[in-house]
Parts: sequence; C-alpha cells; structure tokens
Amino acid sequence: MTYTLRSALIPVEDSYATVDVQIEGDRIAAIGASLPTVGTAIDAENKLLLPGFVNGHAHSVQFWQRGLIPQLPLELWLADVFDTSPTELEQTYLGALGTAISTLLSGGTCVMDHLYVIPGQELESIAAASRAYKEVGIRAFIAPLIQDMPFVSGYPEGVKTLPHQPYHQSTDELLALMEAIVAQSHAPEDGIQIAVGPTGFHRCSDALFEGCRDLSDRHNLCRHIHLLETKAQKMLAQERYGGSAVKHLQQLGFLDHRTSLAHSIWLDAADIEVLAETKSTVVHNALSNLRLGSGIAPVLKYLQAGVNVAFGCDGAASNDGQDMLEAIKIGSLLHNVTDPDYKHWITPRKAVEMASIGGFTGVNLADQVGSLTVGKQADLVLYDLKNLSLLPRTDPIKLLILGRPNAAVDSVWVRGQQVFADGTLKTVDTSHFTQTVFNYGEVYSKPQYKTIHQVEAHYRRVMGLAECGDA
Amino acid sequence: MTYTLRSALIPVEDSYATVDVQIEGDRIAAIGASLPTVGTAIDAENKLLLPGFVNGHAHSVQFWQRGLIPQLPLELWLADVFDTSPTELEQTYLGALGTAISTLLSGGTCVMDHLYVIPGQELESIAAASRAYKEVGIRAFIAPLIQDMPFVSGYPEGVKTLPHQPYHQSTDELLALMEAIVAQSHAPEDGIQIAVGPTGFHRCSDALFEGCRDLSDRHNLCRHIHLLETKAQKMLAQERYGGSAVKHLQQLGFLDHRTSLAHSIWLDAADIEVLAETKSTVVHNALSNLRLGSGIAPVLKYLQAGVNVAFGCDGAASNDGQDMLEAIKIGSLLHNVTDPDYKHWITPRKAVEMASIGGFTGVNLADQVGSLTVGKQADLVLYDLKNLSLLPRTDPIKLLILGRPNAAVDSVWVRGQQVFADGTLKTVDTSHFTQTVFNYGEVYSKPQYKTIHQVEAHYRRVMGLAECGDA
Repeated sequence: MTYTLRSALIPVEDSYATVDVQIEGDRIAAIGASLPTVGTAIDAENKLLLPGFVNGHAHSVQFWQRGLIPQLPLELWLADVFDTSPTELEQTYLGALGTAISTLLSGGTCVMDHLYVIPGQELESIAAASRAYKEVGIRAFIAPLIQDMPFVSGYPEGVKTLPHQPYHQSTDELLALMEAIVAQSHAPEDGIQIAVGPTGFHRCSDALFEGCRDLSDRHNLCRHIHLLETKAQKMLAQERYGGSAVKHLQQLGFLDHRTSLAHSIWLDAADIEVLAETKSTVVHNALSNLRLGSGIAPVLKYLQAGVNVAFGCDGAASNDGQDMLEAIKIGSLLHNVTDPDYKHWITPRKAVEMASIGGFTGVNLADQVGSLTVGKQADLVLYDLKNLSLLPRTDPIKLLILGRPNAAVDSVWVRGQQVFADGTLKTVDTSHFTQTVFNYGEVYSKPQYKTIHQVEAHYRRVMGLAECGDA
Repeated sequence: MTYTLRSALIPVEDSYATVDVQIEGDRIAAIGASLPTVGTAIDAENKLLLPGFVNGHAHSVQFWQRGLIPQLPLELWLADVFDTSPTELEQTYLGALGTAISTLLSGGTCVMDHLYVIPGQELESIAAASRAYKEVGIRAFIAPLIQDMPFVSGYPEGVKTLPHQPYHQSTDELLALMEAIVAQSHAPEDGIQIAVGPTGFHRCSDALFEGCRDLSDRHNLCRHIHLLETKAQKMLAQERYGGSAVKHLQQLGFLDHRTSLAHSIWLDAADIEVLAETKSTVVHNALSNLRLGSGIAPVLKYLQAGVNVAFGCDGAASNDGQDMLEAIKIGSLLHNVTDPDYKHWITPRKAVEMASIGGFTGVNLADQVGSLTVGKQADLVLYDLKNLSLLPRTDPIKLLILGRPNAAVDSVWVRGQQVFADGTLKTVDTSHFTQTVFNYGEVYSKPQYKTIHQVEAHYRRVMGLAECGDA
C-alpha cells in the first residue's frame, strides 16, 4: 500500500516542522514540505509523527497475572508467579494479543517477548504467540524463556541449603528445542524473529549460554537475558563466580551488539565499561523495578558511558499496566533524584530517541527502522494533538512524555501496514478481545500459593531481614 | 436526589463484597445486601465502588504550563514558571476547570488548589476558580498562594547576594486581602472553602504565618503550605533559623490537625515527630518531586511514625499529567526501593485509604466524608471492571492502583450529586472545553525566559554544582 501523510508535525533539532510523508510498501519513501499526494491521503494536521517505540522487555503470558501478585521482592514474587503461570495455549495466545494491543495503543510497534513456554508444549506456545503477533500486525521478537538449573539456584546459598531436584530439562534438550523453535517460527520476513533467551546467569549454566551464543551466531539471532535485577543476584554472582557476572558473561562471549540485558540495576563502574565495550543494550524497566523494590538502575551512568539504553514494560505480573508511554515517562524522570545536576537529566526528546532508535539498536535493527528517515521501514505513530491530554498547545513531545496521555495514539503503521487508524485497531476486534478476557472469569481468585512458604525464611535470612513474623 | 446503586463491589477487610448502596440527598443512607431500590436505580454490577480521592495539592492555573517548562530543579524551574504565569482571568477559570476535570476523571472528588492569583485581580481570581469548581461540581479548597518576601529570598544566600526589591505587597495588605477573600468566597455549604496558603517559610515572614494562623482560627480554615521541598530549602532553614523549619513552624503555632504540608521531603527524625505530635498531614507529590529532582519523601517513615499522608498531583508545570491514579501509583510504589523489607511497603489497599480518608483528614473533613460509611457525605466513584485496563478478573484494587487505567471511571457522585455518569461529565461539556483550549492557540511558543539567567549562576554556586557552561 501507498500512503501520504499530509501536514504532520515532526521534531527537528530543537524545534518542530510540518511535513508530508510518503509511505510506499514497507518503507518511508519521502519526507518534505508540500509533497505530491501518492496513494491514500491521510490528514495528519495537528498530529505529531514519531517513530514507533520498542517494548524492549516483556513477558506476554503474564497478561493473566495483572493485579495478581502482591508487592514482593523478585525472589519471593517469582515463587508466586511460577505457582500461577497459565497452563493453556489459549492463554498464551490471548496474553500475546493483550501485550501487543497495549504496546500499540501506547506508541510501540515492536515487542521483545521473553516468553514463558508451557512445559511439554514449547513449540505450540511459540506458535500461539507468533500467531497473535501476526494477527495484530506488530513486529515481534520471541525469546523463549529457558533455564537449566533449578528454581532454588536463584537464591544466595540456594542450591547448598534448600531442597531441590535437577531441572527437568537438560542443557542439550533445551538447545535442541531452541533449534526446533528457530526452524518452526523464525521468520524475519514476516516481522517475527526468534531470539535466544536464557533467563539469566542465576538459573543458567555456562553451557547453556555457550549453546545459545552459538545458535545466535549460526542464525543471526538476538540475545536477551535478565541481568543483575536484584541485590540477591549480585550476591549470587559473588558466590558462584567470585566476582562480576558481567565479566563472566563477557568471557562466555555472550555480550555483543545483538545482546539486550533487562534491568541491569546492580552493576558497578567496571561492569558498565564492559557493556560499553561490547555494545550491549540495557533495557530499563523502571516500573517493574519499583514494584519489586529491585532498585533504580544507574541509567544516567549508562548514558554517560555510551551504553545504549532502551525501555521496556516488563511482564504484567510486575507492571500491571503495560503502557510504553508510562514506562518511558517514569523510566526517564526517575533518574532526576539520583543526580543533582539537571544538565545530566534525560530530556523528553532524548527519551523518545531511547525508546525508538535505542530500542531498535537493542534488537539489531537500527539500520532498518527506528527513525523518521527516508528509506527506513515505516514503523510510525501519529499522536492526536487535539486530545485534551495533549493540550494546551505548548510542546507536544514534553506533553507526550511528561504528561499522562489518554487514548492519544491516532494511527500506527508497522512495516508500512496501517494497523491502527482513527483510534481503532484495524486488525483485531478489541471489544471482542475484552469480552473474551472478561468471560474467562475470575483468575486465581483464591490463590493457595505454596512455593513462597518454602523459600521465604531462607530469603529473609540471606538478605539480613528480620525473621518471618517479626515486624 | 435519591439513588440506589445495585450490586456494587466494595472492599471489605482483605476481600470484596457485593452490596447495594442507597444515597439520599448528600449522604450515604444505607449499605447492604439486597436493599430495596429507592430513587433512581443504578446498575453497578461489575463495577468497583470506592470513596472519592483528594487531590491534596494542586496549582490549577498551571494547567496552561503543561509541557512547557524544562526539567529543572525547583529553584530554577520556578523562575520559568513565574515568567510564564497566565495573566488573564479567563485562564484562571479554564485552568480550574481543567484541573477539576482531570481530578474527577481519575477518581478524585476534592481538590486543594494552592491558587496563584493574578496581581491586582486577587478577588476576581478566586471568584473565577470558585465558579469553575461549582460548575464542574467538585468539592474544592482554594488556598490563595501568598508570600511577603521577595523571590530571591527562596535561595540560600539569596537576599544577601542577589539584587532585589521588597515584595510588592506588605504583610498587612495580604492579611486584609485574605479577610476579603474569605468574606467573598468561603462557602462550605456549597462545597467551596477558602484555606490559608502562605507559599512556605522560604518566602514568608513569621508575621504572615501568625496572621494566617489567626485567620484560620477565627474562621476554622485549613492551612496549606509547601514544606522543605528541596535541599536548598533545608539549607535556607539552617541559614535563617539556625535549625529546623518544622520546629520553627510549630513554635509559630501553625501546625495542627488542619494543616497540610505539600512535599515534605527534607525532614529529619525529630521533624517527623513534630508532624506526628501536631497531627499535621503530609501531601505526597511523587511525580512532581521526580520531575524537579527534589528527592523522594520519606513516606514509609511518616507512616511508621503515625503521620497522616495524602496524595497530590501538584501543579501541571511540574506534573504535566494531572491524574490522581497515576499520582497514587507512583507515590506508593516509589518507596519500595527505599526499604528492603517488603513488609513495610504500601499496599494498594493502604494507598486507597491514604488517598481517600487520608486526604479528607488533611482537609479536616474526615468525620464527614472519605469512606464508605453510612451517614457520611456521598463522595463516591464507580470503576468499570469490564474496562480492558482492569482485566483480567484478578484483584480490582491491585489493578486500579498498580495498573494503568484508561477511562476506567464510570460514575462519580460529589456530596450526593451525580456529576459523571456512564463515562460522561454531566455538568460541563468536555468537548467544548477541549475545543476552547485548542482554540487558545500556541502557548508561549517561543519563550524568552529571563529570570533564570539572573539566578542560575548563584544557584549552581550555592548548591556546589559545576559552573554554568561546564559539563
């Protein structure tokens, strides 16, 4: 399809310009004042045009765990998450639909889904999520969440002290599964890519990282993991490696320009240098990090060191909202309290860059998409500047990023295809989706979570908290 | 009017119950299972009923400064705010309309407006804001923002070093003005109250505090000020009083159960004890505090000391969104990163209490409104649990507070009057309002702010930041 957006407002240097934009096929064909109209004319007057954002870290199945798990630190929260993970493929499909819709409605055109796969139905899980993303028309990376060490290995002194069995899948089985998943579902030409996604060093062996690294090299796949999300993980790295987890991952050859690292909160200056050297990307999930009390990632230090930083929503079990604009707002504002010199703070324009080109850099697509550049793929979002939440008429990008937009996305194109127009998703019936989710009924309404009781006392002890029962 | 809400979900202890609620006149007449329908029947099935929230600190005129001022610390940001304050009464009126609408659409039924009054048109400013609040039908406290010391007195070493003239109004003139404002506009029976609102110790004399205290005693008015919002203010208190600003205010007799203190970030343990003793309320404005890099208020310490804490949006120049649910979410989540023991964290149910009964405690109305209690005034909000942003059906209050609700407010009653129903404001035409604001045109599109250049070098010097121009 060919489209011409007429009179869209775009950011230029420190100001704005009104331009026409031609989209031909999947590409931006031209940007300029008073271009001839080719194809379908779209009135973009009083609308702001920006590149699509990347939701750089999500767990789509957690859609079902929105509003479910209490506020707890990751190590205890995760016990509840495991105990309530959906077990039906239909939920995998609907969870991906829900995550895709939330991402699109808040300016995102691409999602990195660190996907929980139903045990025994791994290939089917990937297929279900992939189907949802294709239906919505969003660009997606699916990184199957894998580990080869038991749950308790994520706790300091965990494998030494807590009862456990070996993980139910071996490293070789997992790597064979990953090969099968790539063969089945890796389809860059359709906007769906498989990435390697060992959950993180805390529950993965060196052999699993090395196997994933080799798979990534063979098929040019992105690499995506959790990194040093909590103080407990920092302690665990010390216990297991006698030092830096980042240095260890570097030695394994896992860190490169295709590697994105969710959270990355507990890194020191030497670790930050490694990320800069290896051109790794940090995905900042500020809301999840607050909800779980994980800490504030040193994002200003990353930026000062030249590390690429993107934004993510994380899963809905730890960020019950799934709104990219909210994730960007809090993810940029939060750092103002960490550095008194306002000259270092993240401006709204910088935040937009981090979310768009920064996000696409993290998934190794920055040369193809992520900015308003002729020749790039058209992942584009129009925001309605007549929307009350974007008024009065001061500075549109400041309003968008620092404000609280309500239904401000007017239209979205992904790879040149219009998937959202005039405030309505064209690809999937959102009312039907909403009704389907409602009809699912109450979710885990009377939970009897067990695992937390097996690990809480241990957790409190190793973290130096008062014993359970004490205030 | 008499209403019966049928089958509303309400929170009870750690669970929920489905009840009918009768509203007669301005009161909650009955709450129970299977009540007879009196008056207008309202279907509240699949809707969550909560008491209205209090937007405990706002500056309505800053509606015009949404998205305008760069991210700067308060002392520099304020220079820009002063240079761009609206000068037309029509803007005062529309700013209050906009603030009231944002508050209502996000679950608030009451606003404390620390109102900037146009110099020379003080009485008219109050009348304009009051008219807006009555039109919308929200409950409002208007605290005219007054000071009797010059702008530069807000900077450490400011009056000593920076050129200035005395403030253009004397203490006596301001107190006479306040008397006239009370005579003109204080109307508790209409839901509009005047409060005394000296901006804060940093720009107000002891005589002004004493005069406001006496006025408050004579007319039973609430007291509302900014308190220790920044590190610079803490330094200033040391410079001026040789010690604690909180102790000084206590000695002036300004702190009591009618006193609410916006921000309150830089208090020490002894100060916190004073707040508890005097039964003062802290209004927590987390988003504004992040945007200005002011710091994180020690809210968990306040709660542990028994200090009442409410939530506010602050003005739109420092929180470009004006959404109570967002203010509550960030204002409660933020503290998880300040205390590793999750047993101290603010739960969503606690956050709802802080926003409702905590908010009304701060404006001295807790005996009359702020909870689902028979006999209390009906400030009530229904949330639509079939809204996609409140699905799936897990825990409605967790979803509301930890999620990112979109147009989730279904209906609102203030003092028994239905002001919002089926997602539509019944009192004011919001489309017309939106169009009016749009038609106002570009606001300060090419700002030439001056004052910041007169104070920036001084600010950086006293705060120990590198000289202007240095990175």
